[in-house]
Amino acid sequence: MGQVGWKGLCLSLFDYKTEKYVIAKNKKVGILYRVVQLSILAYLVGWVFVVKKGYQDSDTSIQSSVITKLKGVAFTNTSELGERLWDVADYVIPPQVSHHAFYHMPYLLQSSALQSTGIRDALCSKNRDCPAGEAVIAGNGVKTGRCLKVGSNTNGTCEILAWCPVEKKSKPKKPLLATAENFTVYIKNSIRFPKFKFSKTNVLNTDNDSYLKHCHYSAQHLYCPIFHLGKLVSWAGNNFQDMASEGGVIGIQIEWDCDLDKAASECNPHYSFSRLDNKFAEKSISSGYNFRFAKYYRDAEGVEYRTLIKAYGIRFDVMVNGKAGKFNIIPTIINVGSGLALMGAGAFFCDVVLLYLMKKSNFYRGKKYEEVK
Amino acid sequence: MGQVGWKGLCLSLFDYKTEKYVIAKNKKVGILYRVVQLSILAYLVGWVFVVKKGYQDSDTSIQSSVITKLKGVAFTNTSELGERLWDVADYVIPPQVSHHAFYHMPYLLQSSALQSTGIRDALCSKNRDCPAGEAVIAGNGVKTGRCLKVGSNTNGTCEILAWCPVEKKSKPKKPLLATAENFTVYIKNSIRFPKFKFSKTNVLNTDNDSYLKHCHYSAQHLYCPIFHLGKLVSWAGNNFQDMASEGGVIGIQIEWDCDLDKAASECNPHYSFSRLDNKFAEKSISSGYNFRFAKYYRDAEGVEYRTLIKAYGIRFDVMVNGKAGKFNIIPTIINVGSGLALMGAGAFFCDVVLLYLMKKSNFYRGKKYEEVK
Amino acid sequence: MGQVGWKGLCLSLFDYKTEKYVIAKNKKVGILYRVVQLSILAYLVGWVFVVKKGYQDSDTSIQSSVITKLKGVAFTNTSELGERLWDVADYVIPPQVSHHAFYHMPYLLQSSALQSTGIRDALCSKNRDCPAGEAVIAGNGVKTGRCLKVGSNTNGTCEILAWCPVEKKSKPKKPLLATAENFTVYIKNSIRFPKFKFSKTNVLNTDNDSYLKHCHYSAQHLYCPIFHLGKLVSWAGNNFQDMASEGGVIGIQIEWDCDLDKAASECNPHYSFSRLDNKFAEKSISSGYNFRFAKYYRDAEGVEYRTLIKAYGIRFDVMVNGKAGKFNIIPTIINVGSGLALMGAGAFFCDVVLLYLMKKSNFYRGKKYEEVK
Repeated sequence: MGQVGWKGLCLSLFDYKTEKYVIAKNKKVGILYRVVQLSILAYLVGWVFVVKKGYQDSDTSIQSSVITKLKGVAFTNTSELGERLWDVADYVIPPQVSHHAFYHMPYLLQSSALQSTGIRDALCSKNRDCPAGEAVIAGNGVKTGRCLKVGSNTNGTCEILAWCPVEKKSKPKKPLLATAENFTVYIKNSIRFPKFKFSKTNVLNTDNDSYLKHCHYSAQHLYCPIFHLGKLVSWAGNNFQDMASEGGVIGIQIEWDCDLDKAASECNPHYSFSRLDNKFAEKSISSGYNFRFAKYYRDAEGVEYRTLIKAYGIRFDVMVNGKAGKFNIIPTIINVGSGLALMGAGAFFCDVVLLYLMKKSNFYRGKKYEEVK
Repeated sequence: MGQVGWKGLCLSLFDYKTEKYVIAKNKKVGILYRVVQLSILAYLVGWVFVVKKGYQDSDTSIQSSVITKLKGVAFTNTSELGERLWDVADYVIPPQVSHHAFYHMPYLLQSSALQSTGIRDALCSKNRDCPAGEAVIAGNGVKTGRCLKVGSNTNGTCEILAWCPVEKKSKPKKPLLATAENFTVYIKNSIRFPKFKFSKTNVLNTDNDSYLKHCHYSAQHLYCPIFHLGKLVSWAGNNFQDMASEGGVIGIQIEWDCDLDKAASECNPHYSFSRLDNKFAEKSISSGYNFRFAKYYRDAEGVEYRTLIKAYGIRFDVMVNGKAGKFNIIPTIINVGSGLALMGAGAFFCDVVLLYLMKKSNFYRGKKYEEVK
Repeated sequence: MGQVGWKGLCLSLFDYKTEKYVIAKNKKVGILYRVVQLSILAYLVGWVFVVKKGYQDSDTSIQSSVITKLKGVAFTNTSELGERLWDVADYVIPPQVSHHAFYHMPYLLQSSALQSTGIRDALCSKNRDCPAGEAVIAGNGVKTGRCLKVGSNTNGTCEILAWCPVEKKSKPKKPLLATAENFTVYIKNSIRFPKFKFSKTNVLNTDNDSYLKHCHYSAQHLYCPIFHLGKLVSWAGNNFQDMASEGGVIGIQIEWDCDLDKAASECNPHYSFSRLDNKFAEKSISSGYNFRFAKYYRDAEGVEYRTLIKAYGIRFDVMVNGKAGKFNIIPTIINVGSGLALMGAGAFFCDVVLLYLMKKSNFYRGKKYEEVK
């Protein structure tokens, strides 16, 4: 190309090229196409943008910190323990863990002697039936290697080394701390959406000192995260007294569904409560919730012994999740773009109707497609 | 159709159909269209692909494990406790929990007798005013059912069963372990992005034994996660001595923002620090951080008593989140596709200008739209 | 416009406008275009929809609650401790934490006297070299301010206030609880995808009481989350006896990859195991896992002393993550839309071939672009 050619090319770059259309005066297909267009528009505006907020970039990754504090005091008088008073330092184990609040009710409290030898389960006829050091399956001791026989019986039982007296296999009939129903738990949750640099807590930021001392959580007091234990359990669909005797785990879900295009005050926590251990308590090993721990003492001679505690209790697991959305150009354009592409698909569909399903389709085909040579 | 018809159809399948365009030699609209095209291209390449890495599939779901270890020793000499030395085993409660490091400074250490009866708060005039077993609200005991009167007064106070002596309601004036400022905490964090099967830790993988013994975290020593407590608190915008007396919770956020199309060594942790409990310490019940726990003893006669500890301390919550991105064909095509669809919208906009806003728009309309019959 | 004009406009709204095409009887480009179309269709259907399930809305935000329980008993007979029996209450510290199961093997158990004065490390020639209250770096005590000299030496060592006797710097040669290999750990995990309101646990919901008492986890018993410690460690690629002597952290990853368009029974947990502390145990300070804690006693005179325990043990970190997908119209349309837009790009590419690279491209250009005036 010469100089003129290049100039022409440059000029032609700024010519506007527009697709040539054929107007088919066919009202049926015309109306069909308008219906398709309106449907897509309605879907895009109504569903994608208004309902699903498709113009927002959303993020579900949330940073969360939880502080819990139980409050309450209870008195028990049982034959095993005598008179006893339980306050926070006694029934919260371990003292502080994030995302947890736990109170236990020791059912079985026995001071067991140092490990000594006792007799148990396994049957034997000679010492070789009791290999020394072998653990008793699901038991609390190891075999010593001796077979103990009473009198002249040919069968005896293996001698077991265990903490004595051995723990009784029994379940509590009634909850020890029945009044724990009136305890309260304070759950402070600070969250942050790192993507949007947005932070909030679930506690009212108030100067009024007495507010948090007297309020209780309810729909009206959303920012007073002080829960009555009995209500927590009933909101999870259970009866406190039933649950307390077997122990259990209550999940406290805090959901933060935040539209950050609105004011920060519109971003509120939403609580829900559910029971996480197996409800069919009688049937399954996985029901209820209990664990054992020990306190250690030394007597005057310095000999160590321990008090084994089998604690039935209710653990409150605080689970926090959230979703934040904020206007962002990329998802907006992706959604608009895919809607427009869909319009093209609608036109293709109407073309098929016009060119193949109409009476005069041959005629329209000839007009639409201009054959070359 | 006959055989010829089918053959023709088959052949015509491989005819190439291309849209017919009308060239409008209108420089204004032509330049407008080029500007629109270039804008979309610049947005697509510059913003979507270069800045926002729209060619990557990203994931924010991260598996994280944290190991923490405090180090330091402090000496105190107070009237209540006498001379006392505090090392890790004394001030870390509970000994080990993932995503936490906690050191406590016991402010109130009182050996309280077994539960005994004392006199407190509630006013009464007869025994019926003190229902037995009723807990004293926000108190530490339960009523015994007796109303104690001094001399011939008509009013007295209910007898309360509590751990005695009862805890004093007071706040510490100065932090007990002021030298805790010089303690260090080691925070090891192992992460994994399960979607991309990528793992990393925040500790330098070195043969040099002495490196981790002497280094401290700084921008230069990003892979030495050993933090000086005083600096941690000051990075969170607080003064250690102020904070230590009331207790508090410091959030340590570790963010992993990884571009997995680059080398693994480019994927570095980013630390940030913030205070999670309420800063307005004087004003609110939710300020500071403390909890109570107890140690149990038996005296020579086997009678149990306890030492109640109200511990003020600083809890360090390690919160890990991350985002990993890697090239993936699907988001790439979605972004390119939505960009192309946008080009179509641009053409539609220019059409409107050409066909309805230009002087010669009638002429162009007639050319673009070919009326049939 | 008059009344007729408006009526005409209204009617013309329902005229169907369809793009005019030029048929280029060029088989090469025709076949090229069909190949491009088929490739895009194959990618869209095969990769995006079948393999990547592009028709689903997916979510990786998961709510998870974990309950762990260790089981087993072991017997040790060492010179330091004498005969000793270890059951759950003895070796699990702290007793219960979600997402954790930990058993420790105390290596170093020393009853240290109350803090008293001893001699250590730091060299000095006069008292001023030993500032009172200064902590000994990485040590266990603080300086008292006195420089102790033996006889007439000019150099001595600073006097240190510490828990005495001071802890020996030594590592265990062999694991104390070698038989811990046979312990079992029960890990119950309840998950919930809040976006889809879908919940599941990893424990078989059975009436058969004995199932969970006797089963062990394996590929056949996916819903029996009872793990043999030795196997857990070997699945993580380590030898239990090697690991147990130094301590360590084992990560148990539970992945829930759920297609919620299928039955709930198709949504199964997938376990994987890895070691999270540094494997190169000899080389690095960050290897192994141990911590110190103390038990406190009072002797007959009420003087407090403590037993310091340096515990080597294995911590099991349960990390849960998941992904759920369910049919949703929005991602479906985005993927279809971007595929269609790609078709347009394919047509543009074929146009370039036809209009610029073919022999008769001049002719085709003239036909495609109709010049106006």
